[in-house]
Order: sequence, then C-alpha cells, then structure tokens
Amino acid sequence: MPAIQDCYPARFAHCHGCGPVNPDGLHLKSHVEGDQVVLRHTPAPAFTGGVPDHAYGGLLASLLDCHGAASATAFAYRARGGEVGDGGELPRFVSGTLTVVYRRPTPMGCELVLRGRLVGIEGRKVTVDLELSANDEVCVTGRLIALEIPAGY
Amino acid sequence: MPAIQDCYPARFAHCHGCGPVNPDGLHLKSHVEGDQVVLRHTPAPAFTGGVPDHAYGGLLASLLDCHGAASATAFAYRARGGEVGDGGELPRFVSGTLTVVYRRPTPMGCELVLRGRLVGIEGRKVTVDLELSANDEVCVTGRLIALEIPAGY
Repeated sequence: MPAIQDCYPARFAHCHGCGPVNPDGLHLKSHVEGDQVVLRHTPAPAFTGGVPDHAYGGLLASLLDCHGAASATAFAYRARGGEVGDGGELPRFVSGTLTVVYRRPTPMGCELVLRGRLVGIEGRKVTVDLELSANDEVCVTGRLIALEIPAGY
Repeated sequence: MPAIQDCYPARFAHCHGCGPVNPDGLHLKSHVEGDQVVLRHTPAPAFTGGVPDHAYGGLLASLLDCHGAASATAFAYRARGGEVGDGGELPRFVSGTLTVVYRRPTPMGCELVLRGRLVGIEGRKVTVDLELSANDEVCVTGRLIALEIPAGY
C-alpha cells in the first residue's frame, strides 16, 4: 500500500515535512497498518536538542504534525468507504490544534516509530491520538485536531 | 542585550532550532523586551506547508518550542534577581507540554514575530504563553510548560 502522502493531491503536496514535491523537505511517509497509521523516521544527525544525545523537540512536534494530518486523511477516507491507494482523491487536512507531551528525552541514532489512532470524526474535524516511541519506549505523546480543507479550495 | 540562546551554557547549546553551536541549525534568537520575550524569524523558502504560500506547521511549532524555552529561561532568571546578559549562568529549560493553536494560515515571505509572556512559575516548572504574528495579524497561539534541567545534570 502506498504512503498516504504520496497520494495527496499535487496542489497540497508542498509540505516541508512530508510533501513529495518539496525538494528540500523531510519526505516523511505514513502508512495505514490495520486500524492505526504508522510512520518510521530516523532523525538526521543535525536534529539534536539542547544536548547532543537527545532529539530536537521541534522536530518531534513536526513529526506529530505531519503524521497526525496524514492519519486524519486515512481515517476520514476510510469512514467514507475508501482505502488509501484505491485511486480516489484523498481529503487533505491541516492542523487545528496540536498538543505535544514530552514524556522523556528522545534518543538520537535510532528509528522513531509514530502511531496514530482515531479518536473521533465530527464534520470536517478529525481528532487523532499520537504516540512516538524509540527502542520500544514511549517518549512523546500528543493529539492533533485536524481540519479538512474544504472541497474546491 | 545579547540573545538568550547566546548565553546558554555551552553544554546545552546544541539545539537544532536555536543552539549557537549547531552548525546546521536555524540559530533562532530570542530577546527580552520589557516584560515580554520576542523572536523574529523569516522562514526560508523551503519551509512551506501543504500549499506553497503558507508556512509549515512543524516549523511554527518549532519556533514556539525554542522561543518558549528561551522565554522560560529569561523569566526564571529574572525571578531570581538576574537579567539575561549579566554574566551569570542561565537556567536551561526543556519542553514539558507544548500546545499549538493554528488560528489562520501563516503567510510565507514575511517576517514572523513571536512574543512570550509569563503565565507562572512553580518550582522548576515555568508556563509561557506564546503568540506568533505575521503582518500584525496573530496566526498562531500556544503555550509551553517548560521544565528546568536540574543543576548538575
């Protein structure tokens, strides 16, 4: 199954974090896995926090932001009877409110795994719970309230 | 008066967003202005959101994250009788909980102004309200609950 971001409409694919057409971006990729959406990412060495062996909080917020919006797309599309990769045009979400809880330092030098879970859908608002782990330890949790870009924008 | 980040202890100055010793970082700089802390930053052209004329939400969260921690440093240090730039060692804060409310799209191609205001100090926890404006319009608001790194870390 393709990455959610690789199925975004081209006019909405410029995101620095995850837009396939942004030449200088991070090209984050989120995939549907059962009833979750999963992203795997190993930060580049430059993305340290205040101390060299911890990852940068701003990058971690960015991962939650892009992955939350991609998760919202997949959950909303499924609620309408579709599945990512079926060729239909996906809805595109932007961030409304992002909450990030830094529970412990996130180590550098390893793959981070983010999981998105659906909390609820109300009209054009989709709420996603997010969890970021390193070496099977949860380091960051969060929530994104995502808003669908109206059709015809 | 020097930037807060330029006065961080060197061992805590590796942050990708604002660490002076990170060669590949953004080198964000926050300054005390009266009872606020202010940061000015013009995003590089690569930092677009889903559409090319809006700034990337992950970058905006990063700005709030670094600026919130710098604001917490300045507010805590002042509460102890110091002022940034007086030569004393500054306390260093990390992010506990970051909330980001995207109120309207943030335009590209202009300077963003962030303001941090003290909400309260409780022990090693400092809460800062944050506001990001472009062309005098508030685009993003947020709050950082920052935690002081214990002495001797």
